[in-house]
Amino acid sequence: MRATVIHGPNDIRIEEVPDPRIQQPSDAVVRVVSACICGSDLWAYRGVAARVPGQRIGHEFLGVVEETGSSVTGFAPGDFVVAPFVWSDGTCDHCREGLQTSCPHGGFWGEVGSDGGQGEAVRVPYADGTLVRLPRDAATDEALIPALLALSDVLSTGHHAAVSARVRPGATVAVVGDGAVGLCGVLAARRLGADRIITLGRHLARTDIARSFGATDVVAERGEAAIEAIRELTGGRGAHAVLEAVGTEESMRTALSIARDGGAVGYVGVPHGGSAGVDISQMFNRNITLAGGVAPARAYIPELLTDVLAGVIDPAPVFDRTVGLDGVPDGYRAMDERSALKVRIAF
Amino acid sequence: MRATVIHGPNDIRIEEVPDPRIQQPSDAVVRVVSACICGSDLWAYRGVAARVPGQRIGHEFLGVVEETGSSVTGFAPGDFVVAPFVWSDGTCDHCREGLQTSCPHGGFWGEVGSDGGQGEAVRVPYADGTLVRLPRDAATDEALIPALLALSDVLSTGHHAAVSARVRPGATVAVVGDGAVGLCGVLAARRLGADRIITLGRHLARTDIARSFGATDVVAERGEAAIEAIRELTGGRGAHAVLEAVGTEESMRTALSIARDGGAVGYVGVPHGGSAGVDISQMFNRNITLAGGVAPARAYIPELLTDVLAGVIDPAPVFDRTVGLDGVPDGYRAMDERSALKVRIAF
Repeated sequence: MRATVIHGPNDIRIEEVPDPRIQQPSDAVVRVVSACICGSDLWAYRGVAARVPGQRIGHEFLGVVEETGSSVTGFAPGDFVVAPFVWSDGTCDHCREGLQTSCPHGGFWGEVGSDGGQGEAVRVPYADGTLVRLPRDAATDEALIPALLALSDVLSTGHHAAVSARVRPGATVAVVGDGAVGLCGVLAARRLGADRIITLGRHLARTDIARSFGATDVVAERGEAAIEAIRELTGGRGAHAVLEAVGTEESMRTALSIARDGGAVGYVGVPHGGSAGVDISQMFNRNITLAGGVAPARAYIPELLTDVLAGVIDPAPVFDRTVGLDGVPDGYRAMDERSALKVRIAF
Repeated sequence: MRATVIHGPNDIRIEEVPDPRIQQPSDAVVRVVSACICGSDLWAYRGVAARVPGQRIGHEFLGVVEETGSSVTGFAPGDFVVAPFVWSDGTCDHCREGLQTSCPHGGFWGEVGSDGGQGEAVRVPYADGTLVRLPRDAATDEALIPALLALSDVLSTGHHAAVSARVRPGATVAVVGDGAVGLCGVLAARRLGADRIITLGRHLARTDIARSFGATDVVAERGEAAIEAIRELTGGRGAHAVLEAVGTEESMRTALSIARDGGAVGYVGVPHGGSAGVDISQMFNRNITLAGGVAPARAYIPELLTDVLAGVIDPAPVFDRTVGLDGVPDGYRAMDERSALKVRIAF
C-alpha cells in the first residue's frame, strides 16, 4: 500500500510500504477513507520535533474495518470507525477513568514501528479499546465525513481545552490561537454555554470561521497590546476561561495574563520552549489554574459524535483544502506557509 | 502601643508605635488577643522578600473589637473576631465570588502604611468585609484560641491547597512540606475525605503531628528518592492530589512528579525561584493540573470555624511555642533555625 513517510525536515514523501496485517489478536486493520494533517505534524515537518528518517506520519483518520484479530469482539469487517489520535487498551485504570492518553499500552500513530494515519490502511492495536463506531451510511456521506474526521483530534482537542479551562454556561472565554484547534475551541466553548467568546487572530478567513463558530469578539493585537485589548473588553477583569492552543512561550504568557483572577487556562498547544511562559508568581497572586495537556479524545468522541450527528456542532469548516494522497507533501507546505488552515486527505 | 517592626534581614524589633485609630468610616480597631509568626514571614526575615526598614510585620491575629467607624454595621466594641491574612471590601465581584485575595481594595497586613498583626492593636480597613465573628466566650478560652487563630492563615491555606488539588473522598493525597501549612493540609485533606495521605518529612516531631492529623504514610526521602518512594507506595501511579506547601523549585518539581496522571497539584507555597520547577512538558503529557495560590482565607473561615468549634478538626498542635510580644524576635530565630514549628504570641 502507499503511505506518507517523513525523511527529515521539509521532506515528506508518499511511498510504497508493506500492507498492514494483524499482528496481535486484539488488532484490527482499517482501510482509511479520510485523514488529515495536524498543526502538530508541522513540528516534525519543521524539524523541531525529532523523527527517525523513514518514520510514518499522521494521526487522524477514519475508515472501514477490513480485518479483525481473533480477540476483537466490538468490531467486524465493514464497520465504519474513527480512531482517536492515540490508541489505548480500553481496560486499564486510566482508560476506565477517561484518560486514555495515559494508557500504559497506548501509543501514538506514526511512532516507530506503527502505521501513520496518512496512509491507505492502518493496523490498529487494541481495536476494542481504541476505535469508535460511526453510522455505516456515513461512510459514503461526503458532506458528513469532514466533521466526523475532526473527532479524531482537532475537535476533541479544542473540547479538552474548553473543559480544562472550566468553560461553564455564562462564562467569558478567550481563545489564544486561530489554528484549527483554536477554532474548535471556540465551537466547544459555545457548546458548553459560554456567553462571550473572544478570539485572538488577525487572518480574516480564520476569524470569520471563529465568528461562525460562536466567537463574539475578535482581537487582532498580539502580546501586550492583546492583553490590553482583552482587559478593556472585559471591564479590566479578563476571561473566566482561556483556551491556549498554540504552545509557545508567548502564547502561554498571553493566556495567563488575560485570565481573570480565579480563572483557568486550558492548554492544548504542544509545549515548545520550556516553562518560561509559565509565570508562577502571577498565577499565585491571582489564583490562576493551569490545566490541560494531551487530549483524551477517546473519552470525548462519543458525546461529541452525538452532537455532530445531530447537527448541533459542525467543525467541518476547519478543513479548507482537500487533497489526494499524492497531494500530501503539498498540503504540508501549504499549512507550513499558512496558506491552508487544515488539509484533509480523501482516499 | 507596642508592635513588631522589621528593620532588615534578621532585624526584628519590638517598638513603641502610634496607637491605631479610625481613619475611614469602614475601619475598626481590634485589640489583639493572639497572633503568630508565619513561615512566609521568614522570607522577609531572611531578606529574600524586600521590606522597607521600619515596616510592620505579622498577618495572622484575632482579638476584640475596640472601636468601629461610623459605617461599620456588622461589628461592635467587645466583639471577638478573627482576621484573615488580607483585608477586603466584601462587596466587589471578587469578594462576592469568594476570591477576596483579589479584592481591588484589599491589602496585606504589614504592607507600608498599615498595621501588622504582631502588635497590640490593629486598624482593620473594611471591617465588615474583612472580619469574622467568633463566639464571645471563646475570647477567654485559652484552649480554643490557638485553633481559632489558625483560621487566619495556616489552616485556611492548607485547606486551599487541598481544595485546589481537588481532594475528594477516597483520594490518595501527597503533601510536600512538613511546615505548619503542610500539616494543616494533611488535616484539611482528611476532613475532605482523603483515603490515604502521604506526607513528606523527616522531622519526627512534625511527622508525628502529621500522623495525628491523618497522615497514613510518611516518606523521609527527598528529590528523586522521594518520587521513587511515593511511586512505590501508590502502585506506580502517584497521588490523585498533591499539596505543595513549600514554594521552591525543588518542591514544585517533586509535587508535579508524584501526581498521578490526570491529577492536580494544589500549591500554596509562596513561589521563590521563578518557573523552572514547573515542568510544562510533564504536565502536558500526563494532564496534570496546577492550581492554587494565595488562599482566600476569608471565604473559608466560616465553614472551617464551624468544624473547629464542633471539635471536628483541631489545628492547634501546629503551635509548639508561645511567647509574649517581647519574645517575638526570639520566635523568628527559632522558626528560622527550625527549632520551632510555629510560634504563637499571647498578649
